[in-house]
Amino acid sequence: MNTEIALRDILSFHVGGSLVELTDQPIQTVQVSPNAAARSVDLNGHYVNGQLYAQHFRLAAPKSDVPVLFWHGGAMTGVTWETTPDNRPGWSSIFLRSGYDVVVSDAVERGRSSWSPWPQIYDSAPLYRTLEDAWHLFRMGPKNGFAASPANRRAFDKQRFPIESFDQLCAQFVPRWTTNADLSVAAYQKLVDRFEKVIIVAHSQGGWFAQRVASLMPERVQAVVLVEPAGAPAMNESALAAASRVPHLYLWGDYCDDHAAWIPYKSDALAQVERLQALGGTAESIDLPKQGIFGNSHMPMMDNNSAEIADIILGWLARHAAPVTASGSTHAAE
Amino acid sequence: MNTEIALRDILSFHVGGSLVELTDQPIQTVQVSPNAAARSVDLNGHYVNGQLYAQHFRLAAPKSDVPVLFWHGGAMTGVTWETTPDNRPGWSSIFLRSGYDVVVSDAVERGRSSWSPWPQIYDSAPLYRTLEDAWHLFRMGPKNGFAASPANRRAFDKQRFPIESFDQLCAQFVPRWTTNADLSVAAYQKLVDRFEKVIIVAHSQGGWFAQRVASLMPERVQAVVLVEPAGAPAMNESALAAASRVPHLYLWGDYCDDHAAWIPYKSDALAQVERLQALGGTAESIDLPKQGIFGNSHMPMMDNNSAEIADIILGWLARHAAPVTASGSTHAAE
Repeated sequence: MNTEIALRDILSFHVGGSLVELTDQPIQTVQVSPNAAARSVDLNGHYVNGQLYAQHFRLAAPKSDVPVLFWHGGAMTGVTWETTPDNRPGWSSIFLRSGYDVVVSDAVERGRSSWSPWPQIYDSAPLYRTLEDAWHLFRMGPKNGFAASPANRRAFDKQRFPIESFDQLCAQFVPRWTTNADLSVAAYQKLVDRFEKVIIVAHSQGGWFAQRVASLMPERVQAVVLVEPAGAPAMNESALAAASRVPHLYLWGDYCDDHAAWIPYKSDALAQVERLQALGGTAESIDLPKQGIFGNSHMPMMDNNSAEIADIILGWLARHAAPVTASGSTHAAE
Repeated sequence: MNTEIALRDILSFHVGGSLVELTDQPIQTVQVSPNAAARSVDLNGHYVNGQLYAQHFRLAAPKSDVPVLFWHGGAMTGVTWETTPDNRPGWSSIFLRSGYDVVVSDAVERGRSSWSPWPQIYDSAPLYRTLEDAWHLFRMGPKNGFAASPANRRAFDKQRFPIESFDQLCAQFVPRWTTNADLSVAAYQKLVDRFEKVIIVAHSQGGWFAQRVASLMPERVQAVVLVEPAGAPAMNESALAAASRVPHLYLWGDYCDDHAAWIPYKSDALAQVERLQALGGTAESIDLPKQGIFGNSHMPMMDNNSAEIADIILGWLARHAAPVTASGSTHAAE
């Protein structure tokens, strides 16, 4: 039975980005409303580029001063963290009910963060994720187990993703670009900068961004949780030293050897854990199958044991992200 | 002072859409993560197309069984209804605090609803909204009053939009297509279909969709509020008769004669009010300047009197959208 969520308020905002001007574009004549006359459209002018959308839930009585920022993966949006595709409460609700203020954002170019014209502003074309691609990359089943008809799909035997809701997951996909990493990191830094301290829980590509931002702003990031991150960013000695000041938890599901992408991503992250530990940092990698928890996909926040995985993270945060204190301007954290 | 918002839960979901398959697309080789090896990308396969994202806030103790669905305008997302660009509570929070469950959605192809490849799936190119376009179309000031530098902009004298936050408004813009009206209406119908009855509060282009859906599903729409709608859909006799069963409120800000688009949009809507009234329907148009309320832009939910405008709508709903009742499976409405 879910308890109610008492909120002080629900805020949303865009952070980051800057004005870009387009010039010398041809004037178009376009039908912009189904039964209105066509009108001229002038692409010349100013656009906001590189902004990031976030929705901030503030509890009436948070147990912690430090909000949890949820950062999604590639071709996804903040919807990742909301209700699961089979209608169970997502981690955003679970963390709210655990007493954390929560910030769910969309990465630059995704969802409500918007995207900019190309080739005029972005310098490459977008990529789109097919159901076939997701079936294999997200480790739902063997690559040849996908079929358009749900009845004909073959998932892994112990699969914990609610496989009958796979199309609901795929309805969440958004196009992505591969050339906006710097814009994205800059906007994420602006997001972190809205708060005194943050905890970041990040998934997949978002985990890459989170590790990067933790190393750039170690005094602001109380802890970082990397859920199946897309590897680890290359870091020089000083970036690594900075990162080692931030507790890192890495978490992996099952079947990681089934898709060629996950083998190097996982080994890069494990090597990063060793580097952080060698510098005296707190860094841990949890391999769920090695703990006897089998069948998790790339989407543990949606799998049928998503609440248990959340508990693992909440427990780790309680141990490693400093004692949480009632609100005020002082922070026990550090 | 804002009271707290006690929620039973926060749900999100995608509705509508269907699987589309692309075939015969060339294989690409793409760098998809900043420091991973390039990998091959195959556009062939299945996509979800035409889905719509919604976030549903359910109060612990709603005063009404009937949720308020907020539908945004062109080149915007559900962010329209959230926090104002100058950080005041948006109408979604105001309606929650007034006891209504609230559903904030993104139209098909916008925000978290995602968009599909073109020309492969969509049959036209996207449009982008410049700051210049918005300055004039949203009636911030005279067309030649825009400048890239906020200090050099000239707004209308009585302007109620928080003009220093104009760039924050523009950060909310998303690209749009002009050829997806049928897909959008279909998805909005699926959204309405998730509920027994709904109230729809819609803005601009969303107002066009809302009038259309009200005429297609009059038994499900308890009332429809059109905030500066982009005209009225053409309706045959039976559609008009159906629409006349649903109370309609139209609401207009100031400066409507300043941009050529608003003159026909407004006169189309006023003609629709007369047609609905002639059939015995409840239809009303509120012209704010005629009531002595001057200076509202195209974005009254963000203007400095946004809470007062919300009160006008809440009052009208209390009179025309049937008595609100405590929850349960029975409905006093009809």
